[in-house]
Order: sequence, then C-alpha cells, then structure tokens
Amino acid sequence: MFDYKLLAALAAVVEQAGFERAAQVLGLSQSAVSQRVKLLEARVGQPVLVRATPPTPTEVGRRLLNHVQQVRLLERDLQGQVPGLNDNSTPERLRVALNADSLATWWAGAVGQFCADKHLLLELVVEDQDVGLKRMRAGDVAGCVCATDRPVAGARSVALGAMRYRALASPAFIRRHFSRGVSAEGLIKAPAIVFGPDDFLQHRYLAAQGVEGGFLHHLCPSSEGFLRMAQAGLGWGLVPEQQVINELASGELVELRPQQPIDVPLYWHHWRNGGELLNQLTDHLLGTAPACLIAP
Amino acid sequence: MFDYKLLAALAAVVEQAGFERAAQVLGLSQSAVSQRVKLLEARVGQPVLVRATPPTPTEVGRRLLNHVQQVRLLERDLQGQVPGLNDNSTPERLRVALNADSLATWWAGAVGQFCADKHLLLELVVEDQDVGLKRMRAGDVAGCVCATDRPVAGARSVALGAMRYRALASPAFIRRHFSRGVSAEGLIKAPAIVFGPDDFLQHRYLAAQGVEGGFLHHLCPSSEGFLRMAQAGLGWGLVPEQQVINELASGELVELRPQQPIDVPLYWHHWRNGGELLNQLTDHLLGTAPACLIAP
Repeated sequence: MFDYKLLAALAAVVEQAGFERAAQVLGLSQSAVSQRVKLLEARVGQPVLVRATPPTPTEVGRRLLNHVQQVRLLERDLQGQVPGLNDNSTPERLRVALNADSLATWWAGAVGQFCADKHLLLELVVEDQDVGLKRMRAGDVAGCVCATDRPVAGARSVALGAMRYRALASPAFIRRHFSRGVSAEGLIKAPAIVFGPDDFLQHRYLAAQGVEGGFLHHLCPSSEGFLRMAQAGLGWGLVPEQQVINELASGELVELRPQQPIDVPLYWHHWRNGGELLNQLTDHLLGTAPACLIAP
Repeated sequence: MFDYKLLAALAAVVEQAGFERAAQVLGLSQSAVSQRVKLLEARVGQPVLVRATPPTPTEVGRRLLNHVQQVRLLERDLQGQVPGLNDNSTPERLRVALNADSLATWWAGAVGQFCADKHLLLELVVEDQDVGLKRMRAGDVAGCVCATDRPVAGARSVALGAMRYRALASPAFIRRHFSRGVSAEGLIKAPAIVFGPDDFLQHRYLAAQGVEGGFLHHLCPSSEGFLRMAQAGLGWGLVPEQQVINELASGELVELRPQQPIDVPLYWHHWRNGGELLNQLTDHLLGTAPACLIAP
C-alpha cells in the first residue's frame, strides 16, 4: 500500500496553503513536512508541488490528492461502522464544482444544515459547466452542479430543478435605450452584460427576440457584480429570479419584456463510489432543492 | 506600421468569442477573417490564437490585443479633437482587473454614470491583487483595483479609500459554537469561510484574537456565495460591511465581537499613457469613491 504519511503531508501543505501551517496542523516540524513531500516526489519520480505562494499541486500531485480524498471518504464510512477507528475529530472536506449563479443563490441554503450536522467542510470551485465536468472526469472534485445532464464515466447525475432567469435592466437604462419600447433595433445598440465567454444566455434571449449576430456587451465574471452593473444602469442581462426578488418588487430592476423567462435545468453529478457521505449529501440535496428551484 | 486590418480581425475573434460572430461584426466572410488571422500568424511567425471554443489568444496574441487596446484609446482621444475621423460609433472597451468584493459592492455604482455617458464597455477580470498587478505589468489590463499601493512600472496608483470588513455569522451558528461567548478556543473549532488561498483576512482576525496556526475552514471563491454560506450557518467570515447593511440591521447576521472591524485600503492603478478616457475615468473614480468607501 501507499505510504499515507507522505500523502497526508502533501494534502496538508495544499489544504493549509503552506508548509508552516501544514506543520502546525500535523504537529510536525516544518522540515519534517518538507522531507515527507520530497520523499513522495522521489517515489513518484517527479514534482508533486509547485513551490509558489501558496504551493499548488502539479498534475500528478492533483491525482494523489484526489486519491487521498477518496480514501478519506471511504475511511469515514468505515468509521461510522467501527467507531473505535476514529483517531481524530477533523471534519471531512469535500471538493465541489458549481456554477457561479448557484453559489450566489440557493446552494448554501440547500446544504447548510447537512454540513453543520455532519461536520463537513466544503471546498468550492466556481466553474463553467464544461470545466466542472472535466474536473469530475479528472477526479478533482467529488461533485458538480451544472446544466449538463450526461454524467462522466464513473459518475451519476440527478436532476435538481431549474433556475429561472429574467432579462432585467434599471428603469433609467430602459428610458435611455428603449423609450419607444423594446425593439430588435434597440437591443442591438443597448449594451448587454455577459458573465464570460461561455455565457450564452443573452445570445439565446436575443435570438428569441429575432436579434442575430454580434451585440455590444460588458464582460463581468461575478454573479453579484453582474447584478450591481444592471442596477447601476450599465447594461441589461439575464439574472436569476431568486437573486432579485426585492429589486423586482421595488421596481429597482424591471423586465425588458414581461414574462419571457429562460429556465436553465441544473443537475447534480457525483461519483458512484464516493462513499456514504456523498450519497447522503445527494439525498439531502434532492430533498432541499425543490424548495430552491423550479420543478424539473 | 502594422497592418491594423489583421489586428482588428484578431481582436474581433477574441471579443466576439468566435470567427462567425467576428465576421458578422466586421462585415466580412468567415473565411476572410480566418485568412487575416492566418496572415497575422505568418507575419509574427507563431500562433496568435488557440482554436478552442471560444478562441483564446496565445501569449503573443495577448500582447497584440493589448497593443490594439492602447491604440484604440489613443484613437479615441484623437477623435475627440478631430471629430471627422470618427468612422464608426462602436463604443470603447476597457479591460480592468479588480478584487471580487469591490465588484460585488461599490464598483458598478461608482463607474455606472461615467460608462453610460462615455459609451464605454467594461471587460472586467476578477483577480487577487498580486495577479491583478501582474496583469497591469503585462499590459493585459488598463487599470486595476487592489489593496497594494505601489504601482508597477509605467503606471500610477491613487488611494480610493478603504473597505470595512466585519467578522459575521448567523445567530444559529453563534449559539452552536459560542454559547459561552467568543473565545480563542471556540474560534479554533468553529469553521470559518475563506475566499481562497490568497485571502488572509480570517487569519488576521484570528491573530488579533490571539489565535495562531491552522483553523477549520470552508473555501468559497465567490463574494455572494461567501455571504450566503454565512447566512446559512456554515461558518463565520469577514464580509464587507456595505454588503450586509440589511442583514446586520435585521439581525440575520451578527458580529462575533462587536466593533472589531478590519479596514482594507484600496488603490486604483492605471497606465500613465492610457489616454484621456482613462484619465477621465480616474478623475471620476476619485470623485465617486468617497461616497462608497471609508476615507483613506
């Protein structure tokens, strides 16, 4: 079997973002931690860490860390059955990739109680869906929330429900750009807000309004920044309805054209052999998601 | 001089995230755009684009795009003086790097009117401060908001004011972890929320409370996700005061220990030779920032 002392040293350096802090957590000297990582590198025949601030795992290092995570999940299952095995009370960590809008809206409410009850720490990664699934495939994350339903090999996907997006802008923006109503011509000239190169929601909305081709837009890769830019009258954009309940009620943001939402279905991807904790999280999500999302 | 037809083709492909859309915007056929990019690559002797979806610039491509951006800013100045030169009405784009919390809070309000008046489109990049300044140095962005005051070569930095952070958690979280008051011992065991490996605000707060070394934490690289996790009782963390005015007033979030904020100063870095528009944006920011931030 592997030498898990070495793997634990690598994991601590990455999780604690440094050798000094890793040494504190492991109760070792810093040079002992450094020695263990070097020994690990000698065994695998290549670097496992990039010595930057903070240290980051190499490709091989990431695979080793992924293995550590899987083993920890399995250990946790076993500890549940054989309580005497539990040699420390460090909470478990779970790496999950999810889209920025889910993280900015429903995610924490849907998993909060579960994490508190199970002493589970989350390591969240914000990724567009394709990258999120790529991380699933590489074993870099144990779960992923995204709009694609097809699971990668070794994983399962379950439907959680849909997020409803509405095309919104500030009243001042609408007065400035659409004083005679929202027309295709006006939409070409009024700047939109786009999250990033993988965000095609605004394109979809424009296509549905008969506008094809390029359009002026700001780029804003932040869910809350996107909303703030719409509020400040910089542009129009598709915003998750649940993020703007107050702003819609107060009239601070208004729909370009009423009742033309876009629903984006979301799926929870998770390892098949991720252990009992991951299965329980899946069950919990399936229980809480219906209150946060629109029925699939 | 350079052949700007070729450079404009490259810029359009990157800005429009595809050859097809670039062709539409330029009023050319797709193969003409492709030819121009290939010709550009033949001239510089290496690829300028990675042909992925969407196409992304190579290192050399990025330098060329940066040059295009600088030339456009200079052209814009000239157009102001010689209006007849203005052959199209495409708004200017400006790339700016800023920290996630600024984007999630005051940024849009501080620049909204300016962008609307000047028909300026923003291309925002969320970066931790060191990376933001590295992008300044590489000429990849024209401006940067960060907590470091020292400008890179060729740039100027001006103080904008400070963001005030407060250590907050939900009442349920405080009951669960600090039923006998907030002690150093309790802080070691109560999970924190940390934005990412470069976020040391929680470390600073703990050090001020006499807690040194490692501590349990979630990782959540999203400003609004961070807040949602605190609200859902997953952990405590330092949140910009202006992001939680309502939550503090309603008691949905409470301070761990009253009146122990951390103020983070913010600086606006911008190219010295960025042209008149960038100078005007700087003046505008200096005018609006005092209403959004705490006096420097």
